[in-house]
Amino acid sequence: MKVAIVMGSSSDWPTMKLAAAQLTALAIPFTKHVISAHRMPAELTRFGQQARAEGVSVIIAGAGGAAHLPGMLAANTTLPVIGVPIKTRTLNGVDSLLSIVQMPGGVPVGTMAIGDAGATNAALFAASILSIDSPAVAAKLAAFRDAQTHQAEESEALLDE
Amino acid sequence: MKVAIVMGSSSDWPTMKLAAAQLTALAIPFTKHVISAHRMPAELTRFGQQARAEGVSVIIAGAGGAAHLPGMLAANTTLPVIGVPIKTRTLNGVDSLLSIVQMPGGVPVGTMAIGDAGATNAALFAASILSIDSPAVAAKLAAFRDAQTHQAEESEALLDE
Amino acid sequence: MKVAIVMGSSSDWPTMKLAAAQLTALAIPFTKHVISAHRMPAELTRFGQQARAEGVSVIIAGAGGAAHLPGMLAANTTLPVIGVPIKTRTLNGVDSLLSIVQMPGGVPVGTMAIGDAGATNAALFAASILSIDSPAVAAKLAAFRDAQTHQAEESEALLDE
Amino acid sequence: MKVAIVMGSSSDWPTMKLAAAQLTALAIPFTKHVISAHRMPAELTRFGQQARAEGVSVIIAGAGGAAHLPGMLAANTTLPVIGVPIKTRTLNGVDSLLSIVQMPGGVPVGTMAIGDAGATNAALFAASILSIDSPAVAAKLAAFRDAQTHQAEESEALLDE
Amino acid sequence: MKVAIVMGSSSDWPTMKLAAAQLTALAIPFTKHVISAHRMPAELTRFGQQARAEGVSVIIAGAGGAAHLPGMLAANTTLPVIGVPIKTRTLNGVDSLLSIVQMPGGVPVGTMAIGDAGATNAALFAASILSIDSPAVAAKLAAFRDAQTHQAEESEALLDE
Amino acid sequence: MKVAIVMGSSSDWPTMKLAAAQLTALAIPFTKHVISAHRMPAELTRFGQQARAEGVSVIIAGAGGAAHLPGMLAANTTLPVIGVPIKTRTLNGVDSLLSIVQMPGGVPVGTMAIGDAGATNAALFAASILSIDSPAVAAKLAAFRDAQTHQAEESEALLDE
Amino acid sequence: MKVAIVMGSSSDWPTMKLAAAQLTALAIPFTKHVISAHRMPAELTRFGQQARAEGVSVIIAGAGGAAHLPGMLAANTTLPVIGVPIKTRTLNGVDSLLSIVQMPGGVPVGTMAIGDAGATNAALFAASILSIDSPAVAAKLAAFRDAQTHQAEESEALLDE
Amino acid sequence: MKVAIVMGSSSDWPTMKLAAAQLTALAIPFTKHVISAHRMPAELTRFGQQARAEGVSVIIAGAGGAAHLPGMLAANTTLPVIGVPIKTRTLNGVDSLLSIVQMPGGVPVGTMAIGDAGATNAALFAASILSIDSPAVAAKLAAFRDAQTHQAEESEALLDE
Repeated sequence: MKVAIVMGSSSDWPTMKLAAAQLTALAIPFTKHVISAHRMPAELTRFGQQARAEGVSVIIAGAGGAAHLPGMLAANTTLPVIGVPIKTRTLNGVDSLLSIVQMPGGVPVGTMAIGDAGATNAALFAASILSIDSPAVAAKLAAFRDAQTHQAEESEALLDE
Repeated sequence: MKVAIVMGSSSDWPTMKLAAAQLTALAIPFTKHVISAHRMPAELTRFGQQARAEGVSVIIAGAGGAAHLPGMLAANTTLPVIGVPIKTRTLNGVDSLLSIVQMPGGVPVGTMAIGDAGATNAALFAASILSIDSPAVAAKLAAFRDAQTHQAEESEALLDE
Repeated sequence: MKVAIVMGSSSDWPTMKLAAAQLTALAIPFTKHVISAHRMPAELTRFGQQARAEGVSVIIAGAGGAAHLPGMLAANTTLPVIGVPIKTRTLNGVDSLLSIVQMPGGVPVGTMAIGDAGATNAALFAASILSIDSPAVAAKLAAFRDAQTHQAEESEALLDE
Repeated sequence: MKVAIVMGSSSDWPTMKLAAAQLTALAIPFTKHVISAHRMPAELTRFGQQARAEGVSVIIAGAGGAAHLPGMLAANTTLPVIGVPIKTRTLNGVDSLLSIVQMPGGVPVGTMAIGDAGATNAALFAASILSIDSPAVAAKLAAFRDAQTHQAEESEALLDE
Repeated sequence: MKVAIVMGSSSDWPTMKLAAAQLTALAIPFTKHVISAHRMPAELTRFGQQARAEGVSVIIAGAGGAAHLPGMLAANTTLPVIGVPIKTRTLNGVDSLLSIVQMPGGVPVGTMAIGDAGATNAALFAASILSIDSPAVAAKLAAFRDAQTHQAEESEALLDE
Repeated sequence: MKVAIVMGSSSDWPTMKLAAAQLTALAIPFTKHVISAHRMPAELTRFGQQARAEGVSVIIAGAGGAAHLPGMLAANTTLPVIGVPIKTRTLNGVDSLLSIVQMPGGVPVGTMAIGDAGATNAALFAASILSIDSPAVAAKLAAFRDAQTHQAEESEALLDE
Repeated sequence: MKVAIVMGSSSDWPTMKLAAAQLTALAIPFTKHVISAHRMPAELTRFGQQARAEGVSVIIAGAGGAAHLPGMLAANTTLPVIGVPIKTRTLNGVDSLLSIVQMPGGVPVGTMAIGDAGATNAALFAASILSIDSPAVAAKLAAFRDAQTHQAEESEALLDE
Repeated sequence: MKVAIVMGSSSDWPTMKLAAAQLTALAIPFTKHVISAHRMPAELTRFGQQARAEGVSVIIAGAGGAAHLPGMLAANTTLPVIGVPIKTRTLNGVDSLLSIVQMPGGVPVGTMAIGDAGATNAALFAASILSIDSPAVAAKLAAFRDAQTHQAEESEALLDE
């Protein structure tokens, strides 16, 4: 049971490290990789094709602009690929979102929200996937949710006059 | 191992039945349900909370417009929820897409493409999730992909002069 | 006669407190609450279902992104729910707006402008609702409008050369 | 207790008559009017200013394109104005929606969804407003909701194989 | 021969003063006014109806958000109304643009670009209108254009290595 | 006193003939021309540069997609150019609108609504321009407006039960 | 000197055959291929890597939705890749356009208009590229342009009364 | 063999100089020019018509807003024109993109991404064009790509813990 976090550029790390932090918090093992779809296409193909054999269960892939990384990884594996649209300077990530989510019938990418929330949620979604057959992960995820609910309830006290 | 297909209205069925057809083709068992987030909120809560106990592994949820069904199901379960944005008459499903994909950090929905391709892919994504621990599903999915590749290769012959 | 201001996160308060300030200026009593649709779904249901019995007349609900709070409150009460789309970092609140305003036929949310203007106007819209049967509120609202008109007229003097 | 349905053009009637039908179903009295903001500005002003004195409680205003009718009615009355963005041929009602919902702080319009759903919901929102002080309307609205829930529950049977 | 610059709020002045500056540069007389469509509807009506009689030839109207000022002025006069969409904080002026430009058949507004360029161009467009029957304005406008062309030609020298 | 109607393609005529019809109704003389900015750039330049000398007072220019005709005519004349964004098959005229309205400071185009309403309004806007110095046109325009108001008032009778 | 027309699906042929027709009209040799980026990723890689050696000069690639074909071909060759965004049913090709044009710095795709015009223009753009070193193609292209100009000039006669 | 970099304003230089830098890095000769489509239309025509005769092989044209420069250059030459949409303050370059890419059938512009990435890529695309008949450029481009791939591979080390 292992998650692979892949990103198109090291400049995506400030967003994608939120996925890493959330996986760490849930004690889910992961590896992290920079694989540019356009600059490292051969590595992209190799990584997708070998992922299952190398023990990866879920791939989290973040990319921005004409974001081809998640979809091309999905084209090279039958493992679930979770896409994180990185916020872009010109179009705020609308380009990333559409490039990732609008996959043609036949090869899906499970797409998250644009930016930071999406990176955190990619980790939680990976956990929900792993929780199907892992009571331990399911318990950790339930505990996270309870804590989150509790924290939200408490936050009402933060509303000043 | 069971997938639940949920939709916000029976009018979503012409789209969502593509998910059913794809699951059938992969021999993955599923149930189907109409649960309107706004008209049946109590049932939505009950369904989300009971799904895991009732043996559901993955939830596929399709909805249109201010599409709250996938996100609210996700709020009531730790199982993976796959969202299908239904195409709408006024905004072509852009409203559905943003209402489903832009979930806040803490509660993810794995979002598919708008409309028919999204429904088909929701089933394939569910299969990819189930394939992690099921060599049988993994094999079926691999076979589907091979057939799909073969069919695409053959289609070049369809280009007339 | 009481207004309930509800928001999805304490981070919405810098916007939503403008609604509180406007209600205070009109001497309309209100309570304020943090209820996350996705982190506190049980409380959301309870709040909606009990609101009328607890003496609430109008609910003002602010939320951002996949903003499900206003619509789900409306699904759980027949009181009028006024939605305030919170401005978001990636999509500037377009996601919030569409998630709130594009409700399906059957369960309405009266939607305001994105952000600060929307929060202020939510309070004024609540006042207009209460003014139907309250000559006192109607008088206060009319006085506010007159003052506002006067202030706008005076502002021409602010145009420098 | 009376609702006024106003529209910018008789061509808006196919949409706005859904509001009329819903009010009729709830036994709420209403009048209907064509008042073009741009072709009948004097009548618009008169109507807004006289509405409260003439016994109107809530104004429903539908308009398309550069939809100025709801906002200008709101500028001339302190009664609640509910705006219905009419779907347009070129921009599908996005222009109508933004022209209605993006009101500046000071003068609110409670905005509904674009098109048919919005017209139906405008009537239901008017009913929710009137229900605050009218147990009879509240009861009718609750009954409508129950029937709607029941109908949604039944619709699952419509899903063919 | 006189141009009237009208804006919906004194906060529009930083943009609209560019129109004033350009008119000054062309020696075209103008007056400036704050008339909020929503806060000063009576003055808006009066201004539109009296403009021609008071010697105004062209009206320049700037407004933001649900920008009803240019269209409602146009509804109250047969003089040409030039609309300037003010840039807004949430939607960058897309709301202003659509609210101004998408006028229904029957009452036109000549719409300029969003923001500063639009304000400058409103003055130049007013000058082009006045130039039809005024050789003096035509000559000033031609001279402005020549200078502008010359300045553009010279600017190539600004490209550093 | 003469208006020139120019369009980028003969396929724009079904829209642009509404401008011709409205000018005819107001008894304003006009000529009509097909000048493709991209296929006939030399003629575009010639036409713009000669228009004033040939007695043209106002140019109405309709174009679709990357609609360069109105702006390039404006670059070649100091006469007022009114732009009509033609509705396009892929982007519904949003491309046409932005290509026409977003002119840089220095060269304005008075932009109308997308499509049919814009073409009709281009003629009315030309009339409003000509009305400044022509009491006859002013009277015709006022009469048109009165008739239009009357027709709108009468249309209320068209609302069936 | 040879152009390769590649498309993601045989369903793109009704659009892409316009590119073929235009190349034929200019007597430029071409081959045509269906290569789905997501269903035939291995063939995509092979095709891109071998194209130059196989005598291809320019690649025209059409794809729709999350259109990864043009960018991934560009990632596998240093030949010029011209992208044609295919019009899609849900988003009209906006998704195709952004997925193709928003390439990151390092790997360019020369993007054409959405749909039919884009396919025709892809052929003309390929011709313009080939014309740099081929006086014969340059002459053919110039003749095409002259004929096109002549046809546009003649079309004015099509404007009926 | 020479590339011409043209821009609509000297304010576009901070973006367009990235094209110059990339051409320099590839040792491809170029000239740079400010030619405003709207302020220098005569020079635009002259430049387009003379470019081929003056030894230009490829034109790179950057412009913002109603960006007519690339399309009008293309209308005046049969050389390949590469368009760079400059990011704009109000619409982030969406206006520039649509004004450049949505060219009608008959006159193509090869469009790059909005902003900095687009400028860099314009140079690389020019190089890919020149590489067809120049083994030297092809070799330089291949070396650039290899270095780029190597740099991307190395960047994984930049991901901190």
